[in-house]
Amino acid sequence: MHHTTTATKMILDRWDASVKNGTALLDSLSDAQLQQQVAPGKNRGIYLLSHLIAVHDDLAVLLGLGQRCYPQLRAPFLESPDNPDTPMPTIPELKAIWADQCRRLAAQFATLQPGQWFEKHTAVSNEDFAQEPHRNRLNIVLTRTTHLAYHTAQLHLLK
Amino acid sequence: MHHTTTATKMILDRWDASVKNGTALLDSLSDAQLQQQVAPGKNRGIYLLSHLIAVHDDLAVLLGLGQRCYPQLRAPFLESPDNPDTPMPTIPELKAIWADQCRRLAAQFATLQPGQWFEKHTAVSNEDFAQEPHRNRLNIVLTRTTHLAYHTAQLHLLK
Repeated sequence: MHHTTTATKMILDRWDASVKNGTALLDSLSDAQLQQQVAPGKNRGIYLLSHLIAVHDDLAVLLGLGQRCYPQLRAPFLESPDNPDTPMPTIPELKAIWADQCRRLAAQFATLQPGQWFEKHTAVSNEDFAQEPHRNRLNIVLTRTTHLAYHTAQLHLLK
Repeated sequence: MHHTTTATKMILDRWDASVKNGTALLDSLSDAQLQQQVAPGKNRGIYLLSHLIAVHDDLAVLLGLGQRCYPQLRAPFLESPDNPDTPMPTIPELKAIWADQCRRLAAQFATLQPGQWFEKHTAVSNEDFAQEPHRNRLNIVLTRTTHLAYHTAQLHLLK
C-alpha cells in the first residue's frame, strides 16, 4: 500500500505541475500571440489550446468520473488539423474554459483514493485489464501529462 | 507488491516510448535540419539534442547506477543557452552518442527490480527521503520523461 500511495502522488504531482506550467504560460501569452503559428507553417496557439481542452475533456469519461463538457470541440480539434476557416471560440473564452476544466478535473481527481487509481479505466475490457493491469486510471493521467508537456513546449515558442 | 510492479512498468514504458519517439524523429531529420532553429530566434536542433544528452548523462549518477560519460557537455548544454560560437560535436557524432546512451541506460535500468525503483535517488538525503518517499529513482525517470517529451515537441517542428 505504501508504494501505491507513493506512485499515485508521483504521477498526480507531475500532472499538477504540468497544468500549473501550462496555465502560467497561457496567462503570459496575449490573445494576439495565441493567434500566431508556433513556427512557420505549424499549428496556431489557439488550435493547440483547443486541442488540449478537447483531449482533457475525455479524461472524466476515461476515468469513470463524469461526462464530456465540450463535445463540440472534438471534431475540429481532435479529429482535424488546424484550419483558419474553422469557427472557433475566442481566446478569452478558451482561457476561461481551460481554467474551469482544470478546476473541475482537480475536484474529480480528489475523489479517488490511491488504490482506486490502479483500477481499470473505461476504455479497456475486464479481460484485457486482467492481463494488462497497467491499463489503469493512473496511466491515463500519465500519458496525458506527457501529451500536455509536449504541446506546452510548442506554445512556449510563442513567447 | 502488485502495484509496485505495475507502477514501475507504467513509468518505464512511458520512458521507453518517449525515447523511441525521440529516436525515430532524430532518424528522420537531416544534419541540415538539425542545424536550424526550431522557430525563429529559438534554440537550434543541435543544441536541443546536446541538451537532452547532457540531461540524460546525469541519470546513471542520480540512480546510483554509474558515472557520467559526457561531462564536457554539461557546461555548454546544461548551464548555458544556445550559442553558435560554442564548439560542438558534429550531428553524426551526437546521433551516435544518443544511440549509445539510450542502449546503456536501458541496460542499467534493467538491473533494477521494481521495489528498487522506489528506493531513494542519490540527490536526496536519508532524512528528507523518510519524509518524502516520492523522491525515488522512479520519479527521476518520470520527470526526465516529461522533459524529453517537451523538447521532442520542439525538435518535431524541424520537420
